[in-house]
Amino acid sequence: MKIARVLVDGEPALVIVEDGIAYRAEGELFGRLRRGPEIAAFDQLTVLPPVEPSKIVAVGLNYAAHVTENDPTRQIPDEPVIFMKPPSALLGHGGRILLPSGNRIDYEAELCIVIGREAYRVPEQAALDYVLGYTCGNDVSHREYQRKDGQWVRAKGFDTFCPLGPVIETELDPSDLAIQSRLNGEVRQSSRTSNMLFGPAFLVSFISNVMTLKPGDVIMTGTPEGVGPMRPGDVIEVEVEGIGVLRNPVAARE
Amino acid sequence: MKIARVLVDGEPALVIVEDGIAYRAEGELFGRLRRGPEIAAFDQLTVLPPVEPSKIVAVGLNYAAHVTENDPTRQIPDEPVIFMKPPSALLGHGGRILLPSGNRIDYEAELCIVIGREAYRVPEQAALDYVLGYTCGNDVSHREYQRKDGQWVRAKGFDTFCPLGPVIETELDPSDLAIQSRLNGEVRQSSRTSNMLFGPAFLVSFISNVMTLKPGDVIMTGTPEGVGPMRPGDVIEVEVEGIGVLRNPVAARE
Repeated sequence: MKIARVLVDGEPALVIVEDGIAYRAEGELFGRLRRGPEIAAFDQLTVLPPVEPSKIVAVGLNYAAHVTENDPTRQIPDEPVIFMKPPSALLGHGGRILLPSGNRIDYEAELCIVIGREAYRVPEQAALDYVLGYTCGNDVSHREYQRKDGQWVRAKGFDTFCPLGPVIETELDPSDLAIQSRLNGEVRQSSRTSNMLFGPAFLVSFISNVMTLKPGDVIMTGTPEGVGPMRPGDVIEVEVEGIGVLRNPVAARE
Repeated sequence: MKIARVLVDGEPALVIVEDGIAYRAEGELFGRLRRGPEIAAFDQLTVLPPVEPSKIVAVGLNYAAHVTENDPTRQIPDEPVIFMKPPSALLGHGGRILLPSGNRIDYEAELCIVIGREAYRVPEQAALDYVLGYTCGNDVSHREYQRKDGQWVRAKGFDTFCPLGPVIETELDPSDLAIQSRLNGEVRQSSRTSNMLFGPAFLVSFISNVMTLKPGDVIMTGTPEGVGPMRPGDVIEVEVEGIGVLRNPVAARE
């Protein structure tokens, strides 16, 4: 099932998307959802981020070929390296990424996990039972601040630096999906989720051993090699097989 | 005015604390609050974290004498270094800090800013108009993970690693307050907020230039020198002049 949030008469509404048509979703996002009345073609609607997470936990350096592409001295980590992006950075499919000043602000295509029920210290074997589904994310990153600060929160935390969507796919095996980014239609990143150093089940288990994951929380699973800068006027797309295409135009802030 | 959240008949309730007595708070936390009927002596109540933030932004290395105490090669930063703690780490006054395995898990006493209204790119001169008040915080930090990961989210993000409270003081000049931590009654950190490299107004302005701050969001302003480890059985206190004492017992996780 593909679930999204859209604006209907100016109010957020949960929808189920089938064959490009958005139907009102009836029931509970973290319980059972049924398809209600048709609203409109999905691509005619204003799309919001598909969830409202209490936190967004992201994983750095989770594809071997990306670890060394900006810094050849970097080591492959033996455990996931986690950081956070603020919920205020969320942006829906179609929304404009606003670039502050800076010479190198990059796209990073990522498979994102959406948590479906509270998870605390869950074993890897059961971890995917706590997942509602999967969506696409773009971990927009200001490289100058990332290097200067050491901590990545400023570099990755600007408003609009977390495009997410367009939908959550609830029936998907995340272990070997094609993942791409395209800048103005040109492929820039192209890999498979099977190239992750730490897979989705391991990540949910690992993070839940530190902190309680709540329904709606998002885990961004890291980006493959091929990252690069965006400029005002560009259009950046992230596509994950079986989910869809997250497309965002890029503009200058102010 | 001192504002807190407590349990009344098992439900969270907002209270105003005067002379040690908790009165029901009537009205709006981010609007106008009036003192309602008396509930009980404050120290007889189960105290919750005083707010439910959409994000907790923390500032590293904001007192010169702390910058070099664990690593003499560290430079004094020329801009604030920001990171985040997850809301799932929040713990109320009196709650138990639960230590996972590790040889060095430290207390860090901090003055915390609670945002009162949405702030995006506010100038330093107007920044304190966006503040609801101030509270005490303990930025509990797992030093082994902090060094290993580089990113600080795991080290500082465990459940119970963000004690906050006991109250929000809304009428306070934050510029020169005594700040202390005491381990089992012994003073371990003792400084003044005037020793911050970047003061509260600058921090609110700086962070709001990156991300929109929402009502209830918390900024932890960094810790002075004197940090050190806690062990199961300890009691750690953080006191900020004019606010109160945030006291938490320490236990082993599991």
